[in-house]
Amino acid sequence: MIMVDLNCDLGESFGPWKMGCDEEIIPLVSSANIACGFHGGDPLVMRRTVALVKKHGAAAGAHPGFPDLAGFGRRQMALSFEEVKAAVQYQVGALDGFCRAADIPLVHVKPHGALYNMAAKDMELARAIAEAVKEINPRLILLVLAGSCMVKAARDAGLTAAQEVFADRSYEEDGSLSPRSKPGSLITSEDEALNRVVGMVKTGKVRTLTGREISVTADSVCIHGDGEKALLFAQKLTGAFAAGGISVAPLSQICRRL
Amino acid sequence: MIMVDLNCDLGESFGPWKMGCDEEIIPLVSSANIACGFHGGDPLVMRRTVALVKKHGAAAGAHPGFPDLAGFGRRQMALSFEEVKAAVQYQVGALDGFCRAADIPLVHVKPHGALYNMAAKDMELARAIAEAVKEINPRLILLVLAGSCMVKAARDAGLTAAQEVFADRSYEEDGSLSPRSKPGSLITSEDEALNRVVGMVKTGKVRTLTGREISVTADSVCIHGDGEKALLFAQKLTGAFAAGGISVAPLSQICRRL
Amino acid sequence: MIMVDLNCDLGESFGPWKMGCDEEIIPLVSSANIACGFHGGDPLVMRRTVALVKKHGAAAGAHPGFPDLAGFGRRQMALSFEEVKAAVQYQVGALDGFCRAADIPLVHVKPHGALYNMAAKDMELARAIAEAVKEINPRLILLVLAGSCMVKAARDAGLTAAQEVFADRSYEEDGSLSPRSKPGSLITSEDEALNRVVGMVKTGKVRTLTGREISVTADSVCIHGDGEKALLFAQKLTGAFAAGGISVAPLSQICRRL
Amino acid sequence: MIMVDLNCDLGESFGPWKMGCDEEIIPLVSSANIACGFHGGDPLVMRRTVALVKKHGAAAGAHPGFPDLAGFGRRQMALSFEEVKAAVQYQVGALDGFCRAADIPLVHVKPHGALYNMAAKDMELARAIAEAVKEINPRLILLVLAGSCMVKAARDAGLTAAQEVFADRSYEEDGSLSPRSKPGSLITSEDEALNRVVGMVKTGKVRTLTGREISVTADSVCIHGDGEKALLFAQKLTGAFAAGGISVAPLSQICRRL
Repeated sequence: MIMVDLNCDLGESFGPWKMGCDEEIIPLVSSANIACGFHGGDPLVMRRTVALVKKHGAAAGAHPGFPDLAGFGRRQMALSFEEVKAAVQYQVGALDGFCRAADIPLVHVKPHGALYNMAAKDMELARAIAEAVKEINPRLILLVLAGSCMVKAARDAGLTAAQEVFADRSYEEDGSLSPRSKPGSLITSEDEALNRVVGMVKTGKVRTLTGREISVTADSVCIHGDGEKALLFAQKLTGAFAAGGISVAPLSQICRRL
Repeated sequence: MIMVDLNCDLGESFGPWKMGCDEEIIPLVSSANIACGFHGGDPLVMRRTVALVKKHGAAAGAHPGFPDLAGFGRRQMALSFEEVKAAVQYQVGALDGFCRAADIPLVHVKPHGALYNMAAKDMELARAIAEAVKEINPRLILLVLAGSCMVKAARDAGLTAAQEVFADRSYEEDGSLSPRSKPGSLITSEDEALNRVVGMVKTGKVRTLTGREISVTADSVCIHGDGEKALLFAQKLTGAFAAGGISVAPLSQICRRL
Repeated sequence: MIMVDLNCDLGESFGPWKMGCDEEIIPLVSSANIACGFHGGDPLVMRRTVALVKKHGAAAGAHPGFPDLAGFGRRQMALSFEEVKAAVQYQVGALDGFCRAADIPLVHVKPHGALYNMAAKDMELARAIAEAVKEINPRLILLVLAGSCMVKAARDAGLTAAQEVFADRSYEEDGSLSPRSKPGSLITSEDEALNRVVGMVKTGKVRTLTGREISVTADSVCIHGDGEKALLFAQKLTGAFAAGGISVAPLSQICRRL
Repeated sequence: MIMVDLNCDLGESFGPWKMGCDEEIIPLVSSANIACGFHGGDPLVMRRTVALVKKHGAAAGAHPGFPDLAGFGRRQMALSFEEVKAAVQYQVGALDGFCRAADIPLVHVKPHGALYNMAAKDMELARAIAEAVKEINPRLILLVLAGSCMVKAARDAGLTAAQEVFADRSYEEDGSLSPRSKPGSLITSEDEALNRVVGMVKTGKVRTLTGREISVTADSVCIHGDGEKALLFAQKLTGAFAAGGISVAPLSQICRRL
């Protein structure tokens, strides 16, 4: 049977400010990447998000980012190797505290925003993240961009890497995501996006922006939970998976395959 | 044999700003209360402090405070029950992440500053802290002001309460610390302070500001590590303990007595 | 002619998080209280909000709060007199920078949240705020709760106090707002709220929760801009003012009456 | 007569954490660059630093940095043009509030840390800073690295640029500072450093690391106030200036020459 994980960022509200449709998206996903207070989330939001994730039986993951609340962790920052390690361990530890308090396991870690994007291309940064996670708990799964530096860094550290793909982004020949500035980099047709994802999961192949077919590992698909349209697409995606004989399963199961 | 724990706040530097003489005080104490980033400390400082504590074989504790860096957690804040629980769990979890990464156990939790002082007198606040700690790990020891609300809250939550006394503060008849505004509330004579502490540990009694003798449980003595004078006093204190047949021991051992 | 100011809190978004319907409410008000980054708002939001206020010809005011972003400045904090002065001057100065950059005057200052509520009853705190504003610019108007400590503090400092009333809150016999916990403290009938406000502005009187008529100075009415319902009420209010022969005018004009 | 300004960073303490020897260095300098709360400083520290600067008759300048307290504004951050403008205006406005409260003028602005270093080489960033300052007050002097992008950006915006040199750093042939990683980039001999600075001020020339003589504009010399050694060097420097017939004068006077 073909299986794939569906992951989504959750718990990105902060104080009085709400973000995302956590209640609506959580029933659809198998993995929740929970913000840890550096780019979004605060202790109360984290506690409530862990409770929500537990209620719906999804797997809880930490979603650490740069210490940049006003920039939502999307602005590049030049942290040292040691600073990155410490920032990741702080956030993963904090979220794990809430998981233990709720008596559910912390399953995975997925870096957020600029940290995610930079680490996908910067082996030094990728190693800092992987080491940080490994030291806390070597059984944690690192959820990363398929085919990126992070895959190698995770494996070198002895961690399981789960590779994620995006439904709405096109790929370059080297397997990286096409920059948003390139024409065609965003797949705007929902049908095309659905077909591409189902194809990636079933065949392990995807056609690049230039038209070549390349290999891609699709352990997980990243979906968005911010707004009506994103929710509708997520529902269509689960429908397309069902129609295509693909079942949604948690990372712990997907990665046992490997 | 008579035993007592010696505890000290550590890791209260932040970013480029140094605070305290952690390297000098750590060899003297059995328990280190490590700041968790809300009133002091940052991820890198926490990581390094845990390494320092491990190197010297002291017990690591979390030292959570109010989210008030500029006020160093010393300003009263009106947080709700749920906000306090979440803030404590966040900080305890974060520090525990560093402990696990360093492969040492997290042994105790001691609230900081205004949170400590308010919870000593406010049962609701005390319960929020105790519940937060209990949910994360019921084997964590709560290090609290001797005879305060926190003792009952810890026990009601099923936690072990370790009670701490202060060498340089006088006591009221109800066992609380005399307010700093009262004449005589600060013991300025080092000899008197040493005698009082040795007496409290050996006899479980202390003379109040009004001259009455009351009972006090001295599981641990809180010492300061900020400056030359504090270090000298700490050395004198360990000397006075040795001379008085009192051995310094970790909370895990002290509390097994109970 | 009878005149009244209409004021509303604006610019309370932060980073990626949106709050309020600033675009919709701004055409209705004569005074905008702009968040200054401590409880809400960030530099970019402040800059954009000042531009919005300028475009609509409303008067710009600073809306300083406690340094408590996660708590939105609604949690009581125990700051010293000097800390309050400095915190207010920092925020007023920052907002004034944006006003000067946009070439519009900063007209008033209205404290936010817990700072507003505490200062209404605590003369020491009220004086700290008034002194802070006075030192920066004695022509700034202090917009405060009608009949509160803040009125006296403003006048003692040589500032003009503009007194604001609330449409949806009932009053105690001493002129203070009824605590939200009291039955009847919130005026839930829109018609009653409109009648009360029009009455307060026209007669300078209001009936208390206990049924007595007391005097109240209504220089300004505080309206809310968070959501559909609040916007509709604000529109009804301006309609009721027009029908009642009351014209909406800026504080600078209202306070010239005094 | 030959004149030069001496500038130093001040007010970089934060909350309970002290940094620098402000009291000792202030009598020696003509210009104080005061931290504005983003990389160091807090409202109370800023208020006190402005009072100190006023007492000693030095000129007050704003010292804005990236919003990165834990990194002390020394870590590169990728802010947009609009974000940089807003961040600079916020900080300059805030400091100006304290200056107005103390009834002294704000004279100059000097970017801090990574913002300073990045803007020295990045014309877009330099323009964002210059525009921000210009919009608030076109009479503010922009204190910048001699010969850098910032000089042109300041002038293009219609601001006066004051150019600063460093006693302890060597120069490249293009007038930029040699990277710290290059052997010889730090002038470790105090005598050599003194000679170089006196030479730069008197002749407008400096010998590069490669041995060529290049032109340099030395309106101001940046000195450090962090520690015994820095203070001693600053004293020697003022001595060397006196001996060399150079008088220390404020930027407002230096830049009138231009």
